[in-house]
Amino acid sequence: MATRDKKNDRVEIRLAGEGGQGMILAGIILAEAAAIYDNKNAVQTQSYGPEARGGASRAEVVIANGEIDHPEVLLADALVALSQEACDKYANNLKKGGLLIVDEEKVKRVPTTDAVRIPITRLALETTERIITANVVALGALVGLTHVVSKDAIQKAVAARAPKGTEEMNRKALEAGFEAAKR
Amino acid sequence: MATRDKKNDRVEIRLAGEGGQGMILAGIILAEAAAIYDNKNAVQTQSYGPEARGGASRAEVVIANGEIDHPEVLLADALVALSQEACDKYANNLKKGGLLIVDEEKVKRVPTTDAVRIPITRLALETTERIITANVVALGALVGLTHVVSKDAIQKAVAARAPKGTEEMNRKALEAGFEAAKR
Repeated sequence: MATRDKKNDRVEIRLAGEGGQGMILAGIILAEAAAIYDNKNAVQTQSYGPEARGGASRAEVVIANGEIDHPEVLLADALVALSQEACDKYANNLKKGGLLIVDEEKVKRVPTTDAVRIPITRLALETTERIITANVVALGALVGLTHVVSKDAIQKAVAARAPKGTEEMNRKALEAGFEAAKR
Repeated sequence: MATRDKKNDRVEIRLAGEGGQGMILAGIILAEAAAIYDNKNAVQTQSYGPEARGGASRAEVVIANGEIDHPEVLLADALVALSQEACDKYANNLKKGGLLIVDEEKVKRVPTTDAVRIPITRLALETTERIITANVVALGALVGLTHVVSKDAIQKAVAARAPKGTEEMNRKALEAGFEAAKR
């Protein structure tokens, strides 16, 4: 990942959207992929302030090979924004050269020319007929573009957190994200 | 709450147990109760290190009226331990006068005489026939003993996170925790 901090291998990811889009669960899955299946350390944080009452939701994940002293994400290496509000609020808190991934249909105004635009929610609907899998499509796109965790680890972490009977649906959603990242 | 920091009203809670006991979800529910329904600020954190590979799970929640600068819990105001390992590991990271709540049947060795022993998992099973509600019983006990969030807020937050069709079961589990706190 080009934006990775070479010195201590610390990577900071922010996942942001509206309540109900599953951003918190996505953060938990990403952290578990890193820690349980890739043998790294991970800290996953949700901060709730007044914006939580308005329905905004964000999760932050810090991944490193060594100990993680500070769990806060100040300038992220990568941001996934599934709503215009999330993009407006956090796009400026990316590191220089950081990666911005937006839902192409939900985020119309992007403050940079090199954002990666993926129709995340539409892909979820087309692939699984369930909008709720957008968070897993987003994880596939993020991992496909950054390799912040291994493909194997995110597959296992998604399967472990998928409600019974939804494993195949979530596997397909993740695959759709990987495919979108290649384009 | 006797252990509350009077100056900035910051309260730090740690919930610890084994993977699968729902400690992370309990942390999310507690944070959402504080932020969405009690109009406070909350930060909820999971740290995963080598112990995650062994199946240990912990969630930390910081609640305050004002801004939360540091999301880390160093010395907790309250610890809920649903496994012996969790109690062994975190009981010494309680503030002086802090509250220790343990699952009476899972935690046999407690390093203090004034821990609150509640048969959390057994109450979950007796009340709902589902061990998985132990995390909600634990939240009821915690809130009943500390009032760290309002009863109304935790009821709403549990209902909002309960999977469809399990609202009543989770309501009863929470009530069982409240009742246990009175004894």
